[in-house]
Amino acid sequence: MLQAVSPLARPFPVMPRIAGVALRVARAGYKDWGRCDLTYVELAEGTAVAGVFTRNVCCSSEVEIGREAVKAGRARALVVNAGNANAFTGYRGREAVEAIMAQVAARLGCAESEVFVSSTGVIGVPLPRDKAQAGLGAAFAAPECSWEEATATIGTTDTFGKAAVASAMVGEQRVEIAGIIKGSGMIAPDMATMLGYIFTDAAVEPGFLQQCLSTANRSTFSCITVDSDTSTSDTVLAFATGKAGNAPLSGPDDAGADAFAAALHDVCRQLAQLVVRDGEGASKFIEIAVSGAASDDSARRVGLAIANSPLVKTAIAGEDANWGRVVMAVGKAGEPADRDTLSIAFGGIWAARMGLPVDDYDEAPVAEHLKGHDIAIAVDLGIGEGRATVWTCDLTHGYISINADYRS
Amino acid sequence: MLQAVSPLARPFPVMPRIAGVALRVARAGYKDWGRCDLTYVELAEGTAVAGVFTRNVCCSSEVEIGREAVKAGRARALVVNAGNANAFTGYRGREAVEAIMAQVAARLGCAESEVFVSSTGVIGVPLPRDKAQAGLGAAFAAPECSWEEATATIGTTDTFGKAAVASAMVGEQRVEIAGIIKGSGMIAPDMATMLGYIFTDAAVEPGFLQQCLSTANRSTFSCITVDSDTSTSDTVLAFATGKAGNAPLSGPDDAGADAFAAALHDVCRQLAQLVVRDGEGASKFIEIAVSGAASDDSARRVGLAIANSPLVKTAIAGEDANWGRVVMAVGKAGEPADRDTLSIAFGGIWAARMGLPVDDYDEAPVAEHLKGHDIAIAVDLGIGEGRATVWTCDLTHGYISINADYRS
Repeated sequence: MLQAVSPLARPFPVMPRIAGVALRVARAGYKDWGRCDLTYVELAEGTAVAGVFTRNVCCSSEVEIGREAVKAGRARALVVNAGNANAFTGYRGREAVEAIMAQVAARLGCAESEVFVSSTGVIGVPLPRDKAQAGLGAAFAAPECSWEEATATIGTTDTFGKAAVASAMVGEQRVEIAGIIKGSGMIAPDMATMLGYIFTDAAVEPGFLQQCLSTANRSTFSCITVDSDTSTSDTVLAFATGKAGNAPLSGPDDAGADAFAAALHDVCRQLAQLVVRDGEGASKFIEIAVSGAASDDSARRVGLAIANSPLVKTAIAGEDANWGRVVMAVGKAGEPADRDTLSIAFGGIWAARMGLPVDDYDEAPVAEHLKGHDIAIAVDLGIGEGRATVWTCDLTHGYISINADYRS
Repeated sequence: MLQAVSPLARPFPVMPRIAGVALRVARAGYKDWGRCDLTYVELAEGTAVAGVFTRNVCCSSEVEIGREAVKAGRARALVVNAGNANAFTGYRGREAVEAIMAQVAARLGCAESEVFVSSTGVIGVPLPRDKAQAGLGAAFAAPECSWEEATATIGTTDTFGKAAVASAMVGEQRVEIAGIIKGSGMIAPDMATMLGYIFTDAAVEPGFLQQCLSTANRSTFSCITVDSDTSTSDTVLAFATGKAGNAPLSGPDDAGADAFAAALHDVCRQLAQLVVRDGEGASKFIEIAVSGAASDDSARRVGLAIANSPLVKTAIAGEDANWGRVVMAVGKAGEPADRDTLSIAFGGIWAARMGLPVDDYDEAPVAEHLKGHDIAIAVDLGIGEGRATVWTCDLTHGYISINADYRS
């Protein structure tokens, strides 16, 4: 089923070459389609790795193995399978992942635990080992490919290629960060999961790379939602090849550490927002800024309650400044809030202040704002200093069409 | 906006007269519509009351006042306003409720705290006191009306009248229980909230009535969801007039207490399911039975995670036995679960057992089951003895049309 390109799409950026990273793609044929569906990334010796993974209890073997392997902090390769999520496939699924790890480790002469594998697609069908192995063989022999080709190959229901770049000065050395991501619904229709990969030529110790990624994750990937559903396979990995030649970053006090962390955060934020911009059926990109909460975490939970409310999402789809639904969503979040200190704005114009509708509220500019593609909602709880911003998309007939008007 | 009657509607039952309960309706004109919108119920002296209310922090003044008043356990009247929720209206909203309570108390010569008020409709507009007072005056002078008229008058976006009956033997005495309810989405479009009222002629002490209602609530009203959104005004009140003449029930060991509690539970279950059957845009009624959980509460939370998943709800709308989405929803619930002991069935046929797809799974009878209006999903977590059943409806283009293709 081909979807039209999202109206919220962004052009593919100009991407730098990252020294120590070689991209290749091949056709394993996980589905009966005429496209490449296996991505193989070879990483220079000494590459550091960090990762964040789905909290879904029913996660895939890829996630279980990756979560364990990332603790050692070293990577030599990444393999991404598209078309089969290999989730809920028991020991047979696990064996397929281990076979891929062994095949790559034999080629590179590295530990199997330095080979990271992700899979995205249908659930409940073990990844076919024969197709994976033949596909890998073809990838080994393939010429290096572009970021755009690799991005297209990890994609499933994505309607456009999603990538981001940033750079930072670490001491005298400029380092590059490039990220690619796939995902459009959390797991639908039967295939769509957020898989993100970030590559940098910076030299970064694994522990500090993990610290930077985990911190960025809290205010980026953990602050987006399309449909409140959490994939069994969501994964973001960051790889640092060290080829830029900077003095290795090992902690936040090192020269350039702040700049590197900020650039990594910027790439994460861009990638997270691109997933929302490709949300299934999305016609509006919605930024929800929550302030005045009891804590930052509380603000994030209130923001996500608003972002996940079907009534708020359908109101925005209908270009309706329905602040009553925002009040409802704040109240149901289960977080500290006080009806009588609550204020709500659309597009910078306050509709309600301190628990009461604004007397001279002029809906005309708000209505104009809601006709656009980028919608801003601000909520001030008026009880503390906590802040967070979350991003989501609206809920439209398109979402229903993609997810219901379809038989597996 | 008139909606067609839900395809899941049930006929209005034959309802008994409840001694000590007098129903009247009038037209307050809260909206510009040609229908009655104020319901006034007079209750015999000595009537006991119990209640359960929304947990939404941004609740209406009606909920705040009612939650406090129910502690005293006595009621003489109920007033329900339809067309204006009086929520998020600050002190002006509260004054309107107090004016209604004072007017009724003056007429009946009772305490103001014995007058219960509910409102449902648009948020953010204070209930107009003049319309309420004139409407009440008209209701005082009106003839008694039927259950069906009262049910229609408390309704807003409901597409059919929802009521339930049961009876029980308390000692030698037969007691009757009659309940009415309104609600179709949790709060949409700008009006729709669950308001339920249960009346019995049984003599029941307030404390035990509250105990019965709270217990029933946990496995009925707390186990339904249409769109995961929680109204600021949800209320269920139970009134016991004592006119049946039974020996008053004061605790679970009294003769007939079990029968009464079971009958009350039955009415609550029927009413809760009727709200789901009128879910906005619903084309399927879905029962989700969770077993093998760590506890009953945990089972209920897993059930609600499945019931609230847009991907599960759209799959059912599409008549797709997509058990992968059920796996995902179980995993994201944040409750104890183990992928490798999980089993899932549709219409009594197991699609997955102990973490693996069933080898000889025959999808034909499942596909046939999914074509019907009443869908059964069973999930066994395989880790404990906890059980719960929850009810929801599917997510369709109808839901989007009602909530998005509409401007306030």
